Amino acid sequence: MSGSDDATAGFVSLVGSGPGDPELMTVKAKRLLAECDVVLHDKLPGSDIIGSIPEAKREDVGKRAGGEWTPQEYTNARLVELAREGKHVVRLKGGDPFVFGRGGEEMEHLAEHGVEFEVVPGLSSAVAGPGVVGIPLTHRDFVSSVSLVTGHEDPTKDESAVDWQALADTGGTLVVLMGVGKLPLYVEELLDAGKDPETPVALVERATWPDQRVVTGTLDTIVEARDEHGVEPPAITVIGQVAATRDRVKAFLRDGRPQEGADG
Amino acid sequence: MSGSDDATAGFVSLVGSGPGDPELMTVKAKRLLAECDVVLHDKLPGSDIIGSIPEAKREDVGKRAGGEWTPQEYTNARLVELAREGKHVVRLKGGDPFVFGRGGEEMEHLAEHGVEFEVVPGLSSAVAGPGVVGIPLTHRDFVSSVSLVTGHEDPTKDESAVDWQALADTGGTLVVLMGVGKLPLYVEELLDAGKDPETPVALVERATWPDQRVVTGTLDTIVEARDEHGVEPPAITVIGQVAATRDRVKAFLRDGRPQEGADG
Repeated sequence: MSGSDDATAGFVSLVGSGPGDPELMTVKAKRLLAECDVVLHDKLPGSDIIGSIPEAKREDVGKRAGGEWTPQEYTNARLVELAREGKHVVRLKGGDPFVFGRGGEEMEHLAEHGVEFEVVPGLSSAVAGPGVVGIPLTHRDFVSSVSLVTGHEDPTKDESAVDWQALADTGGTLVVLMGVGKLPLYVEELLDAGKDPETPVALVERATWPDQRVVTGTLDTIVEARDEHGVEPPAITVIGQVAATRDRVKAFLRDGRPQEGADG
Repeated sequence: MSGSDDATAGFVSLVGSGPGDPELMTVKAKRLLAECDVVLHDKLPGSDIIGSIPEAKREDVGKRAGGEWTPQEYTNARLVELAREGKHVVRLKGGDPFVFGRGGEEMEHLAEHGVEFEVVPGLSSAVAGPGVVGIPLTHRDFVSSVSLVTGHEDPTKDESAVDWQALADTGGTLVVLMGVGKLPLYVEELLDAGKDPETPVALVERATWPDQRVVTGTLDTIVEARDEHGVEPPAITVIGQVAATRDRVKAFLRDGRPQEGADG
């Protein structure tokens, strides 16, 4: 059947662009951006990476002309449409496509419509952000697990609200993505769950970007530190003993990109 | 003081090599491997990546001549020694240096000895492994957190044993690294903690390597499936609803590397 042939003519690469620094893209992501026919992207990969893609093959699905957000359904449909035209499409996503990235939904949509695809993981800012500023997520002596959580839950969702009590009970490092705005809420939840108010916390703002900043404190002080330094999204929150590591090493740490912010 | 000058003359890059596929290294890792004076590595980055480094600048700290493992103390001391000779050293680590990688210890040792360093994150197989085989770690509709755990705990450690009850209670995806051998133990722990025996589980063996394999099942069946297919380390265990995604999409998924194993 020709319908079926059309459906498999093109190909979609679901690609993670990493945390923002173009050098923290994978070799494969860079190759695919050069080789593909079209790149569907939003603003999250950042201007350094998007700017490196020839304008003729960029298609911004982050915002439409009217300034409104493009519904996920539009992106899903557009991926299938382009693949059916025989295109090799890169769907470029900030960080990793599968860590709070909705790549799973896009993948399932492609499979349902008979479009072949591959997944090219990218560095999630949840891992890379703490890393570049000297915060290891685990430590052999005192951390056996790390939990990644979204601070920006889908408000339409009934089930599976984040269980802060269980996360506190793991005793492991917690990394909250997109959690600057709701910081006071989950700090309160974690204190209520019995976490020590002296537990170290670090906020990594715009990780790996030229204007990256780090603000450190404890569960007791971090909300005040956030307000004092005016930390804005996007930022990552790291909660746990490991968050104190940075202060011990930062004198010898080159962050890689020029400016260094106010360590609070 | 010349001692102090010597100590800061060299420089160490703590670099993650990713899960094994050389194209899943970052652009920066690849550049540093080309530019640096010497690469300290063990076997974990894999033969494809290690083989691409000129032999003259490789130094294997994974095993010593006698076949014994090199103590971490030796690696720490060697990093400082080479930096003091003015070398630009790449300490190449499998996956990400800071996700169960002991990179934190190396970093602290360098800072204590006045050696400048940087951290170059790599793709952890905990994230990249499930990704390439079509398993998203989160899903907007039913997973708000993902916890990464080591299945290979330091037996000398008293505190912070993994709290499987708390991890089960989070309701999020669980990813166990280095957990093939102890699979029956933590499957039991999770069932005791009240996890549904029908919870999907996937084992990703040698993720992103040419001989990658995937075996799927449930908490109830995965130990038998592991034995039937002879799954060996290194492998990643993914536990949660997301582990069932692969079966829905795999007909259209190109895994990127040639062979595909027994989906069980």
